[in-house]
Amino acid sequence: MPSKKTIAVTLGDPSGIGPEIVLKALTRHPEIYRTCNPVVFGDMPVLAQTAAACNIHAAFNIIDGNDPFSISDPSHINVVPVSQVTEIPAIGQINAVSGQLAFDYIEAAVDLASSRRVDAIATAPVNKEAFRLAAVPYLDHTEILTKLTGSSRTMTLFMTGSLRVFFYSRHIPFRDIPGDLDTGRLVQTLRDCHRYLERIGISSPHVALAALNPHGGEQSMFGDEEIRILTPAVEQARASGLQVSGPVPADSVFFLATRGHYDAVLSLYHDQGHIAAKTYDFHKTISLTMGLPFLRTSVDHGTAMDLAGRNKANEISMAEAIRAAGHYAW
Amino acid sequence: MPSKKTIAVTLGDPSGIGPEIVLKALTRHPEIYRTCNPVVFGDMPVLAQTAAACNIHAAFNIIDGNDPFSISDPSHINVVPVSQVTEIPAIGQINAVSGQLAFDYIEAAVDLASSRRVDAIATAPVNKEAFRLAAVPYLDHTEILTKLTGSSRTMTLFMTGSLRVFFYSRHIPFRDIPGDLDTGRLVQTLRDCHRYLERIGISSPHVALAALNPHGGEQSMFGDEEIRILTPAVEQARASGLQVSGPVPADSVFFLATRGHYDAVLSLYHDQGHIAAKTYDFHKTISLTMGLPFLRTSVDHGTAMDLAGRNKANEISMAEAIRAAGHYAW
Repeated sequence: MPSKKTIAVTLGDPSGIGPEIVLKALTRHPEIYRTCNPVVFGDMPVLAQTAAACNIHAAFNIIDGNDPFSISDPSHINVVPVSQVTEIPAIGQINAVSGQLAFDYIEAAVDLASSRRVDAIATAPVNKEAFRLAAVPYLDHTEILTKLTGSSRTMTLFMTGSLRVFFYSRHIPFRDIPGDLDTGRLVQTLRDCHRYLERIGISSPHVALAALNPHGGEQSMFGDEEIRILTPAVEQARASGLQVSGPVPADSVFFLATRGHYDAVLSLYHDQGHIAAKTYDFHKTISLTMGLPFLRTSVDHGTAMDLAGRNKANEISMAEAIRAAGHYAW
Repeated sequence: MPSKKTIAVTLGDPSGIGPEIVLKALTRHPEIYRTCNPVVFGDMPVLAQTAAACNIHAAFNIIDGNDPFSISDPSHINVVPVSQVTEIPAIGQINAVSGQLAFDYIEAAVDLASSRRVDAIATAPVNKEAFRLAAVPYLDHTEILTKLTGSSRTMTLFMTGSLRVFFYSRHIPFRDIPGDLDTGRLVQTLRDCHRYLERIGISSPHVALAALNPHGGEQSMFGDEEIRILTPAVEQARASGLQVSGPVPADSVFFLATRGHYDAVLSLYHDQGHIAAKTYDFHKTISLTMGLPFLRTSVDHGTAMDLAGRNKANEISMAEAIRAAGHYAW
């Protein structure tokens, strides 16, 4: 059995639900400790305030970033205190102090992941507006991680239980989706999918390319992108030795993937993959960032300031993100 | 408690999996009989052949179309023999005899539904190619039902458990979807959704309109159809007294509907609604045809000739279709 991985768990924006879902994940899901050693990167005053506000009973074990991280059990939450917080930020409000703290937690975790003192990072949500107020010179998690590690490009992998979904495009207008399809770029993306699946331990992966048109165009009765662009991409990818199926009609490809027919689906646009993952199991949907030197997992929701401090946040996605980090880290 | 409805269950194409899933639905799901009286419209030789091929033990009660249909229990399957079959059609092959029989079953059921001797029809799948070989002058179920009842237009309603999905468009190329959106037509469609939901017994229905662009366009950062076309449609529908929400980002609207936030979702295109329903629960997805004088429910899959006669077909969707017909018939 492989040794347990050490996972840095960043608290996210202290004014949002991040601290709450991290505490709930680590106290309500002790099975996490069977597969990894989670270490929280945050601040004790923030954790203490959250535990009190949400009535969570937890014992903490404060450790130094230079300590060995090998000892971990469900009875104590290991915490690396990152900042010397003097002022506890207000819960439920976007503010500069929280923006800065959230950035500090990530920076500290990246530092230790880059030197391989931790194996992967699982992140709670941050707030872009709070980053801006704090003059953090990055837009979001992905930009911080890419820049701080000097990575050239990253790719998002969604996971919901056994369903794994990559995206060819994400934040572009719907009407631009067909014109954005390109056989060469699809082949390159399929190659990336295979590489990233192997990276998380799936050997000889089998990827399905989702179709664009209803029923996959039905012999170009409802659109010809399958014939003109998608099928040639699948053929070229296969010719280069990759195991690829498709284009598979989008209304069955995700179901088939949940039944083990494919190791992952390459969806063509944001909602195609997002609708599948989130309708299949909203709370279990997590996101993996591939292309960094280490694995990063995250919840797929925001800071939910309106819920913060009210003991209402659902921690399932955070628990899944930590578990997946332990399972797939390399 | 309302009296049990009588449901005509048509066998579909005798060479496909229709007879098998009807027999399995009626023998393996006795709870169906608690809410309705199912009556099979088909032929005894076909049923007997299927029961033997698939090792299904069933007792039959042959009745006349003019008999009262009120007596029904799980121990006997009521059958109205439709054709005088002399030749049992080959299983697993598309052929004219089966095409003709499949049509005869539907025609007989429509006849009795139109005279209100049965309350609704639940249909097993037919084969368009077999219809063509038999010179049946209709393309598919919907055309037969629309023409034989003299209806002007019909609308499809998908159901998967508590998730109900209508479609603004279906079989058009993906690239034509944005240009097909029209505020006036959307308002009319939202009005139809409300009318059809009330028709199946949902009073004061609440319908959510799905957005088109990722994150609903995020203030037109990724597309402006929400601002130009969808939001005005929601506002006009509301002004006319309908309870409508949206446009709601498509990756959360279906999840929210499964949690009871809305009675139905109006999806803008085929795959948007199909991906949601089929990934949520592929086998439980059924289709309701609204706009006819009576309710028609159906499975959402084809004749699967390659599986026919091999005892491999999954009957869950057929059982759901019969159950839904009993539940929602008026």
